Amino acid sequence: MCLFRKIAIIGTGLIGGSLGIAIKKNKLAKEVVGVSRHKRSIDLALKNKAIDRGSLALDIIQGSDLVILAVPVDTIISLKEEVRKIVGKNCLVTDVGSTKVKISGHLSKIFPNYVGSHPLAGSEKRGILNADPGIFEGSLCVLTPTKTTRVKALAKIKALWIRLGAKTVCISPPEHDKILSFTSHLAHIAAFALINSVPVNFLKFASGGLKDTTRIASSDPELWQGILMTNRIELLKAVKSFESNLKKLKFAILQNDKGKLAGILKQARRKRNTLE
Amino acid sequence: MCLFRKIAIIGTGLIGGSLGIAIKKNKLAKEVVGVSRHKRSIDLALKNKAIDRGSLALDIIQGSDLVILAVPVDTIISLKEEVRKIVGKNCLVTDVGSTKVKISGHLSKIFPNYVGSHPLAGSEKRGILNADPGIFEGSLCVLTPTKTTRVKALAKIKALWIRLGAKTVCISPPEHDKILSFTSHLAHIAAFALINSVPVNFLKFASGGLKDTTRIASSDPELWQGILMTNRIELLKAVKSFESNLKKLKFAILQNDKGKLAGILKQARRKRNTLE
Repeated sequence: MCLFRKIAIIGTGLIGGSLGIAIKKNKLAKEVVGVSRHKRSIDLALKNKAIDRGSLALDIIQGSDLVILAVPVDTIISLKEEVRKIVGKNCLVTDVGSTKVKISGHLSKIFPNYVGSHPLAGSEKRGILNADPGIFEGSLCVLTPTKTTRVKALAKIKALWIRLGAKTVCISPPEHDKILSFTSHLAHIAAFALINSVPVNFLKFASGGLKDTTRIASSDPELWQGILMTNRIELLKAVKSFESNLKKLKFAILQNDKGKLAGILKQARRKRNTLE
Repeated sequence: MCLFRKIAIIGTGLIGGSLGIAIKKNKLAKEVVGVSRHKRSIDLALKNKAIDRGSLALDIIQGSDLVILAVPVDTIISLKEEVRKIVGKNCLVTDVGSTKVKISGHLSKIFPNYVGSHPLAGSEKRGILNADPGIFEGSLCVLTPTKTTRVKALAKIKALWIRLGAKTVCISPPEHDKILSFTSHLAHIAAFALINSVPVNFLKFASGGLKDTTRIASSDPELWQGILMTNRIELLKAVKSFESNLKKLKFAILQNDKGKLAGILKQARRKRNTLE
């Protein structure tokens, strides 16, 4: 059963492309159109059956009953007026941005049927060539309704993610940004700082541990600059907590306190073992 | 062709067990014996064909022409006299410890045929149940000869690792500990501090990024306490460099300096992309 008549995906990259393929596979819309700044991305999205039609211009989104903004955080915000002019303010709108307070503040003001989404299903890779419709299957999608979010809009966006195989959870935008500052943004900070600390001529001795720990340091710099900056306040609090935990480790080592060090390591293992 | 008559593996855990299986598969010794503190580990090593005979007592190593110490760093050092009493000082001895200055200092004094080995092939898992003879295939094994290391002993240990599918590289123990303080020990410190910073009730929002970045935080606390403490001086220098890189990120975010932040992220991606 089609959930939507026409879905417009703005940004046919890793997430947008994966969404397009999954939406078309699951027949959730009669038509899927895509917009990208790059002609090559549109061509690849067509080739990979992520969209039915594509364009470099936003006009193609006209008549959509759902617009999905799958572009970097800053671009989501800067495109909002142009999108509204084409689809009208009553169109259902969601985004897949990694921070929510700023985006939600901007979009909910001009789209009464806006609901924020954050599928926890990305990777350090980018581009439609890395698209995979299976990434939503079994993943968690955080929805960030506010007090003014319309019940019907929330229900439709929730239905979309569930039909794509994701579990959904609703939390407020500020709570989302606080949680993600620890579970995602801080992890990136740690990975960036770690790889930048390793002298270049030592890199050939990297084993699986360093590779895994720094995998996300390969993430797109422009995309992540935007994510980190739009969550500055929460992120700086998370960094402070990280520095404090780092100090505890450092002092245990400095003081040659084996018991204290083993205690910190046991706490870390206990917590890590609760993840898969 | 057998390289050795009788190899004794002290410590039939993840690395010791994997070594036993690989040595037997490749027929590198006429006999492989194993020693463990735990009867269950011996039984499993026998069942998994990692050893031909096993014992809780060291006596079983008598008559070996190669002893491989595959126990935690502190245990390697504390067992040395007992091993020497049984096999004699001329026996070929190696270890697979993750730090080398301290171990090499102790062992090379009483075993003229000692050569340090560090196969960069471990994992956060432990125990013979996780043993896998394939982990050495294509991996790098760092050998740490000193000025007094005998050429013949080095050649034989090198031949062992090459026959197991590893590439070898020789560096001095101090150089080894300096490099590994960055490429391995600091990565563990970052992972321990990161997971300890994430509030417990946020862990259910963990995505692939956090999971990969903290995978090695599951490492055995006692084993890693020993590794980190025996490389304290170099590790503290590496931590200092990490703190400085963390500060650079923090200040770029604090000052809302998008250009500076993007520059740091670009540097990180460039370096990370040189690893597989």
